[in-house]
Formats: sequence, C-alpha cells, structure tokens
Amino acid sequence: MPDASPAKWHLAHTTWFFETFLLHEQLPGYKTINPAFRTLFNSYYDAIGDRPLRAMRHVLSRPSLEEVHAYRGHVDEAMELLLSRDLARDVVDLVTLGLNHEQQHQELILTDVKYGLAANPLGSVYRERPVAAPASEESAPELTWHSFPKGIYPIGFEGQGFCFDNELPCHHVYLEPFRLASRLVTNGEYMEFMHDRGYATVKLWLSDGWDTVRANQWVAPLYWERRDGAWWHSTLNGIQPVKEAEPVCHLSYYEADAFARWAGARLATESEWEVASQSCLIGGNFMDSDALHPQIAPEGVSLTQMFGDVWEWTGSAYLAYPGYQPVPGAVGEYNGKFMSNQMVLRGGSCASPQSHLRGTYRNFFPPHARWQFMGIRLANGD
Amino acid sequence: MPDASPAKWHLAHTTWFFETFLLHEQLPGYKTINPAFRTLFNSYYDAIGDRPLRAMRHVLSRPSLEEVHAYRGHVDEAMELLLSRDLARDVVDLVTLGLNHEQQHQELILTDVKYGLAANPLGSVYRERPVAAPASEESAPELTWHSFPKGIYPIGFEGQGFCFDNELPCHHVYLEPFRLASRLVTNGEYMEFMHDRGYATVKLWLSDGWDTVRANQWVAPLYWERRDGAWWHSTLNGIQPVKEAEPVCHLSYYEADAFARWAGARLATESEWEVASQSCLIGGNFMDSDALHPQIAPEGVSLTQMFGDVWEWTGSAYLAYPGYQPVPGAVGEYNGKFMSNQMVLRGGSCASPQSHLRGTYRNFFPPHARWQFMGIRLANGD
Amino acid sequence: MPDASPAKWHLAHTTWFFETFLLHEQLPGYKTINPAFRTLFNSYYDAIGDRPLRAMRHVLSRPSLEEVHAYRGHVDEAMELLLSRDLARDVVDLVTLGLNHEQQHQELILTDVKYGLAANPLGSVYRERPVAAPASEESAPELTWHSFPKGIYPIGFEGQGFCFDNELPCHHVYLEPFRLASRLVTNGEYMEFMHDRGYATVKLWLSDGWDTVRANQWVAPLYWERRDGAWWHSTLNGIQPVKEAEPVCHLSYYEADAFARWAGARLATESEWEVASQSCLIGGNFMDSDALHPQIAPEGVSLTQMFGDVWEWTGSAYLAYPGYQPVPGAVGEYNGKFMSNQMVLRGGSCASPQSHLRGTYRNFFPPHARWQFMGIRLANGD
Amino acid sequence: MPDASPAKWHLAHTTWFFETFLLHEQLPGYKTINPAFRTLFNSYYDAIGDRPLRAMRHVLSRPSLEEVHAYRGHVDEAMELLLSRDLARDVVDLVTLGLNHEQQHQELILTDVKYGLAANPLGSVYRERPVAAPASEESAPELTWHSFPKGIYPIGFEGQGFCFDNELPCHHVYLEPFRLASRLVTNGEYMEFMHDRGYATVKLWLSDGWDTVRANQWVAPLYWERRDGAWWHSTLNGIQPVKEAEPVCHLSYYEADAFARWAGARLATESEWEVASQSCLIGGNFMDSDALHPQIAPEGVSLTQMFGDVWEWTGSAYLAYPGYQPVPGAVGEYNGKFMSNQMVLRGGSCASPQSHLRGTYRNFFPPHARWQFMGIRLANGD
Repeated sequence: MPDASPAKWHLAHTTWFFETFLLHEQLPGYKTINPAFRTLFNSYYDAIGDRPLRAMRHVLSRPSLEEVHAYRGHVDEAMELLLSRDLARDVVDLVTLGLNHEQQHQELILTDVKYGLAANPLGSVYRERPVAAPASEESAPELTWHSFPKGIYPIGFEGQGFCFDNELPCHHVYLEPFRLASRLVTNGEYMEFMHDRGYATVKLWLSDGWDTVRANQWVAPLYWERRDGAWWHSTLNGIQPVKEAEPVCHLSYYEADAFARWAGARLATESEWEVASQSCLIGGNFMDSDALHPQIAPEGVSLTQMFGDVWEWTGSAYLAYPGYQPVPGAVGEYNGKFMSNQMVLRGGSCASPQSHLRGTYRNFFPPHARWQFMGIRLANGD
Repeated sequence: MPDASPAKWHLAHTTWFFETFLLHEQLPGYKTINPAFRTLFNSYYDAIGDRPLRAMRHVLSRPSLEEVHAYRGHVDEAMELLLSRDLARDVVDLVTLGLNHEQQHQELILTDVKYGLAANPLGSVYRERPVAAPASEESAPELTWHSFPKGIYPIGFEGQGFCFDNELPCHHVYLEPFRLASRLVTNGEYMEFMHDRGYATVKLWLSDGWDTVRANQWVAPLYWERRDGAWWHSTLNGIQPVKEAEPVCHLSYYEADAFARWAGARLATESEWEVASQSCLIGGNFMDSDALHPQIAPEGVSLTQMFGDVWEWTGSAYLAYPGYQPVPGAVGEYNGKFMSNQMVLRGGSCASPQSHLRGTYRNFFPPHARWQFMGIRLANGD
Repeated sequence: MPDASPAKWHLAHTTWFFETFLLHEQLPGYKTINPAFRTLFNSYYDAIGDRPLRAMRHVLSRPSLEEVHAYRGHVDEAMELLLSRDLARDVVDLVTLGLNHEQQHQELILTDVKYGLAANPLGSVYRERPVAAPASEESAPELTWHSFPKGIYPIGFEGQGFCFDNELPCHHVYLEPFRLASRLVTNGEYMEFMHDRGYATVKLWLSDGWDTVRANQWVAPLYWERRDGAWWHSTLNGIQPVKEAEPVCHLSYYEADAFARWAGARLATESEWEVASQSCLIGGNFMDSDALHPQIAPEGVSLTQMFGDVWEWTGSAYLAYPGYQPVPGAVGEYNGKFMSNQMVLRGGSCASPQSHLRGTYRNFFPPHARWQFMGIRLANGD
Repeated sequence: MPDASPAKWHLAHTTWFFETFLLHEQLPGYKTINPAFRTLFNSYYDAIGDRPLRAMRHVLSRPSLEEVHAYRGHVDEAMELLLSRDLARDVVDLVTLGLNHEQQHQELILTDVKYGLAANPLGSVYRERPVAAPASEESAPELTWHSFPKGIYPIGFEGQGFCFDNELPCHHVYLEPFRLASRLVTNGEYMEFMHDRGYATVKLWLSDGWDTVRANQWVAPLYWERRDGAWWHSTLNGIQPVKEAEPVCHLSYYEADAFARWAGARLATESEWEVASQSCLIGGNFMDSDALHPQIAPEGVSLTQMFGDVWEWTGSAYLAYPGYQPVPGAVGEYNGKFMSNQMVLRGGSCASPQSHLRGTYRNFFPPHARWQFMGIRLANGD
C-alpha cells in the first residue's frame, strides 16, 4: 500500500519540517547533521527540490532509527534555542504549523502501523488490552434525525488561533433545509447492506466506485475477514470480532456513498456538516481517550459522535473556498495543490489528537482511500 | 485514445438508444434486426447487461456501415410508427432524451473525427474550406471585467421544456461578489503563459496536474505542433497556423487552472457562470454556424462568447444538486453515476448544436481530458 | 489484441515492402502515390525511420480500402516494369524476400480475421461451408512413437532456392537418441488433461506459465467456450463443436509444455524436429487445401502431420545458429533482432501457403502467444 | 527494485528452507517457533502453499531482526540434533542442497545490499576500505583469442559431489570450432562502445533490448553516474571512480549482446564456455578474496577470469538438458520451473563463495537483469 509509510519515516519527516522551514531559514549558523536528509525526508514539497519516490520509504535501511532519534534530538535542541528568541509573528506561525503537521503524522503513524500489522500474517498487536466479552445486549442508540433550517451560514475559520489555509476565508453559503443522523452508521447496519447484496448491486454505485469494487474484489470494509461464519477485523488490539453496535469504519467514499443511496439517504455536504457541528462541543473519542478504536454512540438527545471516532465522508469535493490564497512560500504546497480528485472528510477520528481538531477542519482523501478511520453519517433533505 | 469512438459506432449507439429504451419497451411486436446489437452497442448502461470493452469499438469490422445504416432505417421506421400513436408523457420524455442524446453524439463525432484525423500522419481534412490569409491586424477585443454582486441566486433548470436530470432541482446558492472576464482567453495570451515557462513552473499546478503534465510531456495544448519557429495546430480544416486572436482550445482542466493562477485569477464556479449567463442570449458560434472552430471574440460591451466557441472549464466538481434524483430506470445511469472525479464545463462549443444548449446545462469531463473543444474564461473575486 | 492487424493494413504493408526495399532503391524515377505511406505502413524497420504505434493500426480510417488498392495497383505496375529489366542477383533476392514476406502476411490475415470475428459477438463467419455431422465413429489413429538414433546431423538450409537468413548457416548438431509421436495431440487428449485439472495443477507449469494462466484465467485453449456441457470453438467457419479426433490448436507454449509434462513426455527440440522431418514429404493440410482448419491425422506407418495443420511448438528458444549473419541493410531487421524471449515453432499450418514451407523453416513467437494455429507434438528420450 | 530483498528476509528464508524441507519432515517432534513463518518466509515454492507478495518483504516490520536470529538459533539447534543422527542419503542430499541454497543467498545479500545502499542518497558504504589512488598506468592485459576445435564434448555434471538438478544429465554436444577472449571486457572498452553512441544505435540491439533501453533511458551500466566529466559508480566501498582496466559489470544481457555485436563478436554459448573452462582451475576473485569488486585481469597465457569477478552472460537460453528430471518433491521447484525467458550465466562472481562454483554450474536471470555482478566475455567462430 503506497500510502502508508514506516514510523521511522514519519519521525524523520516531521523533524525535517522544522529543520527545513524554520532552522535553515531562521536560525543563523544552524548546521544540519546530514545535508542529504533535506532530499531524503521531503514528502511532496516541490519548491524544496527533488525527493525520493514514495515507494522508497520502505526500502531505506539507512539512516537507522538511532540516527533518526539523534537527528530529532539535534533539531529539538536547535528549536529550543530558536524558541528562546523573540520571534516574528510569521515565524511563530510556522512553528505552530509544524506542530499541527506533527499531529497529523501522529495520526498517520497509527493508521500506517495498523495497516502494516494487519498485512503481516504474524497477527501482531500494537497494544494488548483486555477486551470485554462481546455483550450481546450491547446496542447503539436508535438513529434519529436532526433538522436544520434553510439559511445563509458562515463557513470557514474566523477568530484567534491556528487554522490551515484551506479553512479560509470565512465566507457565506446558502443551505436548503437538511437533516442529519444523530449518530454514525454502525457495523450492524452496514452488514444489512452487505447482506442485501450491496456490493453486487450496480445501481447503488458511482461508476468509478463500481470499477474500484470489481477491480479490488471488495466485499466488505478494509480489515474485515470471515471466520467460521462471523466477521472479524484487524484492530490495533489484534484481530477482534466485529461488534454490530460500533461505528463502521475503514470505508472508501464509494462505499459510503453507495450505502447512503441504499439507505435512501445521502452524505452531508461539508457546509451542512460544519453548520450542524456548531451546536456540538469538540469532544469525543479522540486519540487522547486512548481507545484507538471507534466506540458505540452514547445515548443522548443531541447529535453525537460529530467529533472523534471516525472521519465522516462528506459529499463535497475538496476545492478552494471563494477567495482562498495559499500561504506564501514552500509551505503553500501544504494544502492547495491537492485540490482535485479528493473528497472532504470532517470531524476527526479516534486516532486524531483532540487539540488538533476544529469544526472548520477540512480533511481530504481520494475517494478510494480506506486505511484511515473513515466512516459514514447519513444526511437528507428535509 | 480510448475516449474516441468511430463515427459508425456513434451512429449505431444512438440508434440502439431508441431501440432499447423505446421500441423494445413501448412498441408491441417490435422485432430487432439483430439481437446481438443490444450488447454490441451498449455504451455504459449496466442495467441493460454486458457490453464490449470500450477498446473493442475500433476493432469491430462487423457490422458494416451499410448494415448500420440498415439498422438505423429499421429503427427510424419503427420510431415513426411509434410516434404516430398517442404516447404517454414519460414516453415522449424518453424520445426527447433520445434526441438530446443524439445531439451529444453529433458533437462527439466531430471531436472524435478531429482526433482520428490529427493522429493520422496523412494529414486528412474533414472539410476543405478556404482559409483567409492570417491578417496580422486581426486581434481580439481587450479583456474587461464584468462584476456581479453578492446575493442568493436560483441555480438549475425551472420551467417548460427539456433538461437533463443533473440540472435539477432548481435551488438557491449564495454567491460572494465576483467578476467574470468579458471574453475567452486567446491563443496569444496562452502563448505568453507558455513563453513564461508555465509548463515548467511547478508552483502553478495542482499536484495531479503536474504529474499529468510530466507523464505526458505536455508543453502546449493538444493538437499544437511547432514548425519552423511557429505554432500550428490540427483543425477540422487540416493543419493551420495558430492565430493569436482566437480562443485557446483543447486544454485540460489542469492547464486551465494553472493558466488562471499564472494570470492572477481563477476559474469561475459553475454557479457564478450560470448567474452571469442569465444576462446573455443563447447564441454564438455553435455547430449551426458551420465554422467548426472557435472564432475571435466580437467587440461589445456585454459578456461575449458565453455560449458556443469552447466549453468553459469551471472550478466546480461535478456533483449532485441538493435534492437530486436520477430519473427512474436504466436511463437513470445517464448522468448520476458519473458524479465523481469530474469537473463541470459550461456554455457549449462550436461543435454543439445550438438547440441543445441551455444556461443551466452541465457538461462534465475528467480533469485530464483535452479532446473536446475546451477553453478558459477567467474569473475573480471582486 | 495488439498482435492482430486489420486486413487492409496487411495489404498496405506488404505493398510498402516492395515499394520501400525495391522501387525506391532500384527503379530510377519511381514516384510514390503518397510519401506519408513510408511511415504509415512501416511495421518494425527502425532503419527506415519512425512508424506509428502498433495500436494505431486499427484506428486509421484513412487511407480507405480503395486507396490501398490503388496503392497496390500503382506498386504492382512499377514492379512489373522493374521485373522486365535485367536485375542483379541481390535485387532478385529482395523480390523473392518480398514474396515470402507476403506469404507470411497471407497467413496472418487469416489468423487476424479469425481473431477479430471471434471477438465480435455477432458470430460472423469468414466462409460458410457445410460441416459434416460430427461422426461419433471418427477417431484419430493410435499414437505411436518413431525412434531416431543418436548422431551428428546437419541442421539448417543448404542448396538452391530461397531461405530466410535465420536458417543459415547449415551446421552440425549432436543429438542423443529420441522418439517423436506419430501424430499431433488431439482435442480429446487435451480434454483429458483439462479434466485431470491440468490448468489447476501448479507443478505441471513453468513459473511464467503459471503466472500467465492465472492472470488471464485460462481454462482451455483460445476460442473454446462451454455451452450446455460441451465444448465449442470459433473457427473460420463460425462456432463449431470441438471434435475430439482433431488436433488441438491455439495453445501457448506454456500450455504445450505443461501438457507434455502431464503426459510424461516433452516437446521436441527444433533440431530433433528437423532431423525427423527429413523423412517426410512437404505436404499436408496447408492453406492450399482450403480447409483452413486442422484435420484428423491420416492413418499411416510413417510420421504424419509434420507439415501443415498446426505449427508445432518446440522446446527450443529462438536463437542464432552458430555463424549466423543477418542480411545487410534494413531487411536485416527481418529476423535477427527478435532473437530473445521467443520459442521456435516448426512445420507450418493449415493457414500457411505450402510453397512457403521448408523442413528448415523456423517460425517464432513469444511463449504466451495463442492466436496462430499452434499445437503439440510429443517427444521423448529413447 | 522488486528483485532485491532485505538481508533480514534472506536470513529468515534460508532458515525456513532447513525447517521446511528437513526439520518438519525428518525430525519427529520438532516444534516451530512460529507456524506463521511457514507462509511468511516462503519464496516461491507453490507446493508449500501460499506466500506473501514479493513486494511485502520490505514492508514487514515484524518479526524483528532479534526474532529472526532467535528463529535461526532454534533451527540451528534442531539441525545439529538431526545431523547427529544416522541419516538416509536423500536426507543428507537435502542438507547439502540447503547449504548451497544458503550460499546463493549469501551472494544475494551482497548484491541486494549494494542495490539498497546505492539507491539511498546517503551514500552509505558497506565496508570502508582504503582505495589505492587510481594509478594511471594500470591497464588490463591485451585481449587475445583462444581457439577450440570442433568436436563432440561432454556437457553437464558427472562424478561425486553435489550439483543442482539443472546440470544433469551429462550429455554430449557437437561444437563447431570457436574462439574465446582471454579475459573479460573492461570498463575502458565499454566506454568506447558508449562513446561510439552504442546506446543510440538501434541496429546493434535486439528488439526487446532496444525497447528496454528506451523505456528505462539507459545510457550506461547500472550504478554509473557522471560527475564533472568523469564516470563514477557505486560499489560496496561507496562511490568510486570507474577504472578503465577493471572488468565492466552490472550489465543486462541486452547490453552484453549489443556490445558484442558492436565489437564484431558474439557471446559464447554455455556449451562453448563449459568446454573452455575445463582447462581452467576453479579459482579467482570470489567472495573469499574479500574484494567484493571485480579486479583487473592478471597477465598470463591461458584464459583468465573464467571463474569469479563477474558472471558471464552466455548466448544460451536457460532450458532443460536432454533427459532433465527435476528432483522429486517441493524442492523440485528449485530450478526447473524457471526454464523460460531467462539466459544462462557462467563462472561465478566476486560475490560468490568459491566452494559454491563448478564448471558445470548454470546461473540464470532474465535478459534485463543488471543488479548481479554480470559482465561480458567475447567469443567468435573460428
């Protein structure tokens, strides 16, 4: 899977980010440990120059993990020196960007490790933890619908604090009335779709989705496998039975879209999602809760699971907001150049650090991606 | 080029459309000439069943053109019989759909023939016509900007007459103030971009666009070639010198987007385009004018070239309008299932029949497509 | 299938051969009908210059068949003029090469037409001909073994008359004693292999063969399909029941090799085949007999079916004979440059003109090729 | 490069070989450390069952190197127990096969490490060693030709001791008189070919070779790069200047073949090479000499460098000897199933253990392979 990278690479690359965009630029006299790292750990910044093929990340036996830790220590030390100085506002902003960048890679380490361990027939476990016996009485709360009136709504980030450039500028959208499901779609609901021959019913699928399903012979979410008549799936806690009450996860946009069509609903647009999220506190099952797995929705009268658990595919393509300007310089490649052939996801997952998320946060992946913690919330017109 | 099909296939496929969706369903006792055609000339309707690989279209030496004409005559005759009857409204709608479908293939025949003749080293010409000596004094009118205020605008089709399901339902969008260029971008303006190393400047490009440019070694629009220091291009009238004052054409979305970024502008959203078009009459350089090539913009104080000449790439992904429902049955595959990984184009081209177009008409192609008459109109915030 | 070309192309290319290698070089004042043909109809002669991609052959709508016939007439006329003169020996040799080249394309037209018609769901027939009702009593003669002693044998062409450069020089090989089967392997025998799960038994296959079988999901020879519990196959006479007594045909080298292993035998080397063929007259079921399909082996005490019916895969890679020299000039690309990754076939087929064949004739195809009339004769050590 | 594997994998796979073919079969009560290893470290033995995709070898972070060493220790201990018993002849033969298998992987570790370090921009060095300053006076001995008479020669292994099944049975071949070059082709000689536009001269190349050169944009041997007007290459001792007097190395069959044609010569057949080698002692620059790099040919009147330094491409396809039988059981997949689309190399390299080699030893790689220590010895007819 070319999307996943080794943890060692993530550590080196986030270190590289600070070295390249801050130390080399802002700390006079800074000396790198190894000039070759500038090329070696560049991910996709063309303005910085050449970079190795993505597939090479797994093949690089050098530098060793020890050398990468030494690199990190060297850069940390220099960053502390830099931070002890009186820095201009745009430099401070770059430091904050570097920290948010690192948070993103913390999430990627978890999803990439999950992928790597699941692909390994040894059945390795990221972290052992006692699993409660599957309580047959466990169930998700009933799915209800929350209505939102038509209107002109502000969308995008406004105010103090950090945001990515793709959340700007704050602008207005007009929304028709819409409804949002009170919780995420569950494994049990998704099994109904599978049982109803969802993966074999062409009229439920986008054309590209159908081609993808057939080419990859998908018959279930990523990580699911059939054992003795029951579904199991790989988790960071090893291979576990699929619990019907938990949110379904590791689905592509194509599957989310087909499920919604089967259910007589649709996915929310990212504007609808953002408007609805304004009534919710940013809390939930994030990396901070240390479950590293989506949890059964809590009971409650308000919208639940809007933040954490799984990224929610929206029906919106990842495009520029009206008036969007990428930040100047090489870090301007961070977001803007990926605005084609991707869909927006919202809300964060059980692998996201909670402090990283906002209601205006726009995540994006190509419609066939499945290895992130990605799931479904249904929407509909009113 | 897998997107292009032989003219014989287009003729057979449009005939197949009437036979499959009307005669087999609505004309009792209808007998086909050849039951194998049901499979053979299916383009992409999964509900109808199997179909040959797209690449096979060029390889099929049977049926002959004479047999296809006989097929057409047979179907025409049966259609006349059907049309002489008293038909239900939904049947009449299917006939209208079939006619609009055929108009789309009339345009495709022209663009596919253009592609085929241009790829053939014989330099064949679709239709000889005298070319006026390139008048050095020819020039396009100065590009000016037309401003549109913010507001809530209706988008989508409303009223009598035919439209495709993807133009429905009529709904409202809120737009920030925006400006639209008075005319299309010209070959001369595009040459400036090329001269300024536009194709070699990574920061102007979307990431997927940059990959596409490098993989295909694009350095100019499709059909352009350099001869003795000047640019020439294939037209339906043979190989001709590129005239600077004419609209640039045969560009991908990636190139349109990069050009706009270079020019300090952007592409319009499809909503912006549709709102602006409401001030324009539906007229211009369509197939009906028989030029089959984009023409120099006329002088004038209003927006020009909004309809005809070239399809205008918008910055909008091709997605469902809020409340969209595909029409029931197999013809529901016409539009809806393609709503991923494509961008919207607006306005029609010199190869479109004028009666086929509307201000609400949504054309769509993947961002790398270039073989339709596709060009650029600049937009910007106000 | 990229290997197959349209009949129109074959006609134009064989004409091009005479024009390029003879008329342009040897007939002063010769004028071509169209200089673009020099590029357009070049197959693989790099010394002649550029050529279109092979896949383009099917897409070229121009020149028309009428224009190709006119091209042929023009070249025929000029060739007659040339032939009326007193020609040097090497010029006469080129004419002979051109005639043999044309014979090869006569065979290719038949196999390419067979492929094209079989791929077309219309079930078209190259030539209708009454098929005798499958006589259940028809059977192939019993397979017996013919022994050949060890010894030093001459291999390759010697004497008067034409041969290709790859049959030269005549040299000697030492052969261990070997046995050759009296006739070709039949459909019935091949069905036993299939029935014995030959296509699913990995240990019977070369590694590349196994990969090819799985990637293409081969379960039977090319053109075979199952209908109501019986095997049918496409022939130039339309779709017909597979007759058990006829030679099996349209197999890759991988299948021939796996069958032989299953049968406890092996394929002959090309030297063994050539030595054995010296006892046989060059006669049999060639194109001249107009059956265009392999026929049941005749009864007889000698080796049968050595010539005609099907090309026989040998276990020999297509390599240079000791002392091999390609003929000088561009026609030297005819054979020599293909001496890698191909296997030798011997004996000609029911689509080969009889006058084209010799006991020393070396045909060659990549091991996965199946669309020629290709079959199996078993061999073994003694 | 999918052909290269991590050193950890080689260690685990050679251990797996002993466990799978000896301990599980021959040591009653043997318990594996981990049953998943049976699948995980299978390279290509279909009879053993499933195996991971080759590309996965680099991605497997588990088991760790420590676990693989523990696996090795466990297997070594059990093997010592097994070897202390009275073993049947065929069991002893399997042990010997396992040792020879391990020797092959010792060579592969070196070539794979070389590939991995060369691909890594860090410029890591396998083993630092002082390099003598390039002595301008260093030169290779003059190339002379050794003649061999025509005759019937024995080919293949005979006698006591180990050989692979593909060296059997010993049989006879008839050879025309031939000549062999006294030493390997040097870097200096190969530079002349490059300087003479060898890589751009189509008529020197096999058709597949030309396609490969263009697709990969080869302009020099693997590992060569141009710096300030001089050629350097990656070695296990880091990046070093190319010395003209040393044997050229890391060439594909296509390049060896093209060079020989340019030089007015050809490659030897494997029979010719084997006959010639019978006059040479098995000694030379093997792994045992610890140079890990081909060395300048010694002066001398006899053939030099026949063993060691670089594997010598022959003009022979890798095929079965007459009467060849693979050894029974799963280890029968060792050699026989690769007998298509590969060419034979002879003589061993500077990375081969000397005790592993024989005059009858047949190595084989596809014609495009370059990452082994592969070079050229010229041959010709007499």
